[in-house]
Amino acid sequence: MAKTRKLPRPKAETPKGFRDYFGAEVTERAEMLSKIAGVYHRYGFEALESSAVETVEALGKFLPDVDRPNEGVFAWQDEDEKWLALRYDLTAPLARVYAQHRNDLPTPYRRYAMGPVWRNEKPGPGRFRQFYQCDADTVGTASMAADAEICAMLADTLEAVGIERGDYVIRVNNRKVLNGVLEVAGIPEDDEKKRGIVLRAIDKIDRLGPEGVRALLGAGRKDESGDVTEGAGLDHGAISMILAFAMPDAAQSGFKMESERGETLDLSLRDILEHSEAGREGLEELDHIIGLVRAQGYDEDRIRMDTSVVRGLGYYTGPVFEAELTFEILDEKGRPRQFGSVAGGGRYDDLVKRFTGQAVPATGVSIGVDRLLAALHAKGRMGRTAQGPVVVTVMDRARMAEYQAMVGELRQAGIRAEVYLGNPKNFGNQLKYADRRGSPAAIIAGSEEFERGVVQIKDLILGAQIAENATLEEWKERPSQVEVPRAELVARLRAMIDGQG
Amino acid sequence: MAKTRKLPRPKAETPKGFRDYFGAEVTERAEMLSKIAGVYHRYGFEALESSAVETVEALGKFLPDVDRPNEGVFAWQDEDEKWLALRYDLTAPLARVYAQHRNDLPTPYRRYAMGPVWRNEKPGPGRFRQFYQCDADTVGTASMAADAEICAMLADTLEAVGIERGDYVIRVNNRKVLNGVLEVAGIPEDDEKKRGIVLRAIDKIDRLGPEGVRALLGAGRKDESGDVTEGAGLDHGAISMILAFAMPDAAQSGFKMESERGETLDLSLRDILEHSEAGREGLEELDHIIGLVRAQGYDEDRIRMDTSVVRGLGYYTGPVFEAELTFEILDEKGRPRQFGSVAGGGRYDDLVKRFTGQAVPATGVSIGVDRLLAALHAKGRMGRTAQGPVVVTVMDRARMAEYQAMVGELRQAGIRAEVYLGNPKNFGNQLKYADRRGSPAAIIAGSEEFERGVVQIKDLILGAQIAENATLEEWKERPSQVEVPRAELVARLRAMIDGQG
Repeated sequence: MAKTRKLPRPKAETPKGFRDYFGAEVTERAEMLSKIAGVYHRYGFEALESSAVETVEALGKFLPDVDRPNEGVFAWQDEDEKWLALRYDLTAPLARVYAQHRNDLPTPYRRYAMGPVWRNEKPGPGRFRQFYQCDADTVGTASMAADAEICAMLADTLEAVGIERGDYVIRVNNRKVLNGVLEVAGIPEDDEKKRGIVLRAIDKIDRLGPEGVRALLGAGRKDESGDVTEGAGLDHGAISMILAFAMPDAAQSGFKMESERGETLDLSLRDILEHSEAGREGLEELDHIIGLVRAQGYDEDRIRMDTSVVRGLGYYTGPVFEAELTFEILDEKGRPRQFGSVAGGGRYDDLVKRFTGQAVPATGVSIGVDRLLAALHAKGRMGRTAQGPVVVTVMDRARMAEYQAMVGELRQAGIRAEVYLGNPKNFGNQLKYADRRGSPAAIIAGSEEFERGVVQIKDLILGAQIAENATLEEWKERPSQVEVPRAELVARLRAMIDGQG
Repeated sequence: MAKTRKLPRPKAETPKGFRDYFGAEVTERAEMLSKIAGVYHRYGFEALESSAVETVEALGKFLPDVDRPNEGVFAWQDEDEKWLALRYDLTAPLARVYAQHRNDLPTPYRRYAMGPVWRNEKPGPGRFRQFYQCDADTVGTASMAADAEICAMLADTLEAVGIERGDYVIRVNNRKVLNGVLEVAGIPEDDEKKRGIVLRAIDKIDRLGPEGVRALLGAGRKDESGDVTEGAGLDHGAISMILAFAMPDAAQSGFKMESERGETLDLSLRDILEHSEAGREGLEELDHIIGLVRAQGYDEDRIRMDTSVVRGLGYYTGPVFEAELTFEILDEKGRPRQFGSVAGGGRYDDLVKRFTGQAVPATGVSIGVDRLLAALHAKGRMGRTAQGPVVVTVMDRARMAEYQAMVGELRQAGIRAEVYLGNPKNFGNQLKYADRRGSPAAIIAGSEEFERGVVQIKDLILGAQIAENATLEEWKERPSQVEVPRAELVARLRAMIDGQG
């Protein structure tokens, strides 16, 4: 076996863009994902944990005309020259798994997946190269009932993790509605350049506002630096039609449209889309989805049609969903703003075609795990309860067995507890340790206490800041400390912890 | 953005040595790990999820005198020429994390970690290149109380996941006891070659039996193929002493030792180790651990001293633990054999030295996740309950909203349920689908049922195998199918599922 090479002392650090997660960061995420899995399971979705490593071919991540993988993935060559890579999302592995196992899987196949993915991208503040995704997809059915189910499940999921009704809304749009708008606006289906400009323009509506998008749809836009972005060169009518589509609640409310002769017309998106087959089909699909969720009792406050959902329209082929949290938080500058999107998805009808040549319809949703965790923190749904263990301090090293028996009793009673295992000489250090551990209480018992059959319980939440070198006597005088019979330790401690709430 | 290169259709397969996990394989493991985490948490251990990717330096995995990482890891070069690799265990990352964050972590630091690790090794049957590990370690204390705690926690953990008392035993040994034996046997501490032969020999006792080991400790051993393995060249006395150490229950029972003059002496390992400082220290440590766990009520049936625990003795520096399951299973040839080891660990006192130059004592345990899952399956603790969803079949496509309302009700009541979303034309296919999903029941309702305000519930567990092209009429005649008022759907279904047990 090869020995480790003698090297200068290695730096103890994660690679750039990676991080570690400690304590509650791990358990709170696990708890949230477990609640989500519970809802998905109840909806009949099956867990899938695909391999973290895929062949680069299976991921479809080769650079054009080069035998080298895309820089977006972490890739390496296996001993048999094959390129392997870490998965960069959970959808590409789903496609591979479905193509590989399709004869053994039920059709339709509902599956959920949760786990880390890796991106070989430039890291930035809050942008890591390893992060969690949480997806649910239904593969093998074109039925809008599958899309409706995803929307309903998403609503249930948000409520299950602690987002209250009224604090979220799931908006539904459809790529075919956009296709209809583009058709009526007179942009031919094969004018990919113009369609690209329009798609990118409406994708920027949050950032540029309607006037910026209007410029991009028309003659072009000059930004603050003076750079000019080429426009789509559309006329007034087409521009206002597309803007109406991309503005909130356009489908419900009428809007003003200026005709070529300068007249203003009151029109609804429905009226316009009557003139396009794609548009009619898109609206029908939307109506179908909304009808199905209404029948299950999901009202407009929870799931609604909204053509201003533009994210992912370039990628998805039919319905598109977005879950938005509507409560306000303060941004870095202290200004209130809506929390925003925590999940999104839609229908994509060519999932496994790359492998089998056969188009398989699929629809699904991906929850932004870190975003949703941040939302739960912002709403005070997480991180409020003290998680630290009760610390049994060591006054008399020879009595370690008796201290161990104490923690044993506490754990039996379901109370998180530990014996101090550092050097017990300096008692202040033991209490500093308990402080660092976020302990609700410390147990203190020396030979005197053992003789009298009692223990001291120190309430660390009630107790003030822990002084560095306090003596045992000083601690005993404090009101936050009580002496109880040894036999009552568990009951008294339980009452104290419950009271700390 | 670079476009995907046009390539021949990729193969839909995992890389060699990797696999996917489906449904219950994922949820049963998650459930088991969650129970384990519950015990660890109650013992005051903190969750840690370190980055899956480490620098090769931090892992200590460079080949000797070569700027290339060890073949045992999956490694690649970052854009700034740094070598990165997937972690191959959870201990090397713990060392890196502790060295990096030691000023912010409590001392001692109790942490647990669960997750996949990756090995760039030749895969074999049941041997994968990605698998789960589940570790708990206490860093920063030399106290035997930490080792005792690990043993007690391991016992509690096994019981928490479903291994009954009496079906497991945790055996404890100590590297220092072996050092004492080697000292008394006259093998100098610096004779690394001879010590290596002895360590490797006793590591093979399960496979070769006492006579094979005796040969390796003496003149050498010729195996079945005729190959000769060099022996340690020890004399009779030394050999029987080492064999006594490595045979089960040597510490408790006396054993026969042949003197140089051919006399047989009754001796205990304790008598022998009196002659070695290391030996005395090792026995003292073992007595200390056993004393502490006995004080907490762990008797000899659960945790015991056993010098025949030899695995890991070459790696650990003090106490060594092994959890063995004592019930019998049938091997591939149908012969009964003990299930064997599911967890192991010990004390290693140079955890972070490579990073900081400072020795930090640590002790810990690693549970073989796949082994323990297999044990729970063997004991019938897992995989017995049907997990499939109730399938609401689609008799009338136009009534999709009503079917959706049914599953909505069922899910509200906590019953896993789904609507059939495939092509509903062939009703037999719907029932085949329900069969493949492991459904406990199918719900059937066509226009006639809707008019009469009833639904059919088909008990699929009771019902015999599902015929391929049965008609609705045939299905209705079967006794496993009952008609119930629509309003009683949830209650009747709940009763049926509970009755299926």
